[in-house]
Amino acid sequence: MGRTSDAGERLVTSARQLISMRGYQNVGVSELCTHAGVKKGSFYYFFRSKEELALAVVDAFWQDYEARLDDSLAGSGSPLSRLERFLDDTYLRHRSAIAVDGCVRGCLLGNLALELATTTEMVRDRVALAFGRLSAALEVIVGEAMASGEVPEGDPHLKGEELLAYIEGIILLAKARNNVDVIAHLRRGALALLGVDQKNERSQTE
Amino acid sequence: MGRTSDAGERLVTSARQLISMRGYQNVGVSELCTHAGVKKGSFYYFFRSKEELALAVVDAFWQDYEARLDDSLAGSGSPLSRLERFLDDTYLRHRSAIAVDGCVRGCLLGNLALELATTTEMVRDRVALAFGRLSAALEVIVGEAMASGEVPEGDPHLKGEELLAYIEGIILLAKARNNVDVIAHLRRGALALLGVDQKNERSQTE
Repeated sequence: MGRTSDAGERLVTSARQLISMRGYQNVGVSELCTHAGVKKGSFYYFFRSKEELALAVVDAFWQDYEARLDDSLAGSGSPLSRLERFLDDTYLRHRSAIAVDGCVRGCLLGNLALELATTTEMVRDRVALAFGRLSAALEVIVGEAMASGEVPEGDPHLKGEELLAYIEGIILLAKARNNVDVIAHLRRGALALLGVDQKNERSQTE
Repeated sequence: MGRTSDAGERLVTSARQLISMRGYQNVGVSELCTHAGVKKGSFYYFFRSKEELALAVVDAFWQDYEARLDDSLAGSGSPLSRLERFLDDTYLRHRSAIAVDGCVRGCLLGNLALELATTTEMVRDRVALAFGRLSAALEVIVGEAMASGEVPEGDPHLKGEELLAYIEGIILLAKARNNVDVIAHLRRGALALLGVDQKNERSQTE
């Protein structure tokens, strides 16, 4: 039983790695099984379809992402400084991934959304759920930053949505140009969206 | 000759339509030929590979996009009002496409970037070129809006880049949720990025 359950996890880990790098359509079940060291016949013991494996990949990605989000947002410091930490961490994480991947692979959620939204409703739906949770977390921290007076008053929900769009858009551009430095602008644009005066802020790129 | 050249154009038109809806990997050469009414044997007379057809699709998309951009940005009105017109047009175009597509299909450039950037360098490169041109056009109009005093002073290049990221991010979110109303927020977030006071601005969603 231990080995069986382990094989399912290995399939998720392999799928996450291969799909993150090359997209969903580009990765076949046979290759996934070989990469995970799992017999092809066993695949359908764990997952009814490749789509179902993709859902498990989104869940695993979100679980890790949420843990990092909590570390950044729920730590010490003022609300705005915690949001800035999250934005800086996002850039640093993508930058350090270059050494492993050799290129900008983007955000798994954004990649799957644009690749599969029009063809695989259940994957689109799961990605949308993760985006909803990220937007909600951003809304909370923005609300706190508004309450503390660091960010001008406004609608925290709308600002959380704007931040989410900007984060995904910056990562998309970085991937389109295969240039991670694009993400170095994440904090500056995010603070502009929130209406924070940046004359006294130091840019990540300086 | 007329018919031959027409067949090449039909292949580009079909590819643009099918790839926009379902992605690049999901559309095969046989299906493209059937859709375009072109014999499969003729495909390689026009394009050395499916990748080369994808480049022609990006070029055709950008040609149309640039014409719309010029219509919006180069028309009458103040620089800021022309930028707003472009943002509003972007939303309305995606909204009216729903009637044809039945879902939010997103931006072809963003879709191809996230699907192919890590696997097909020449498509990534062509998409990056189009994004560079869009960013440059946004930089020009933002620079004019800064000169006219409608937008606070700043670096027009960086603001153009931020706008481009935000536009792509908003469209990505709309596709992930299959909800075009997300794009209704385009103008509001864009003006926030530029630091424009929106107390007297009417939101598109109101």
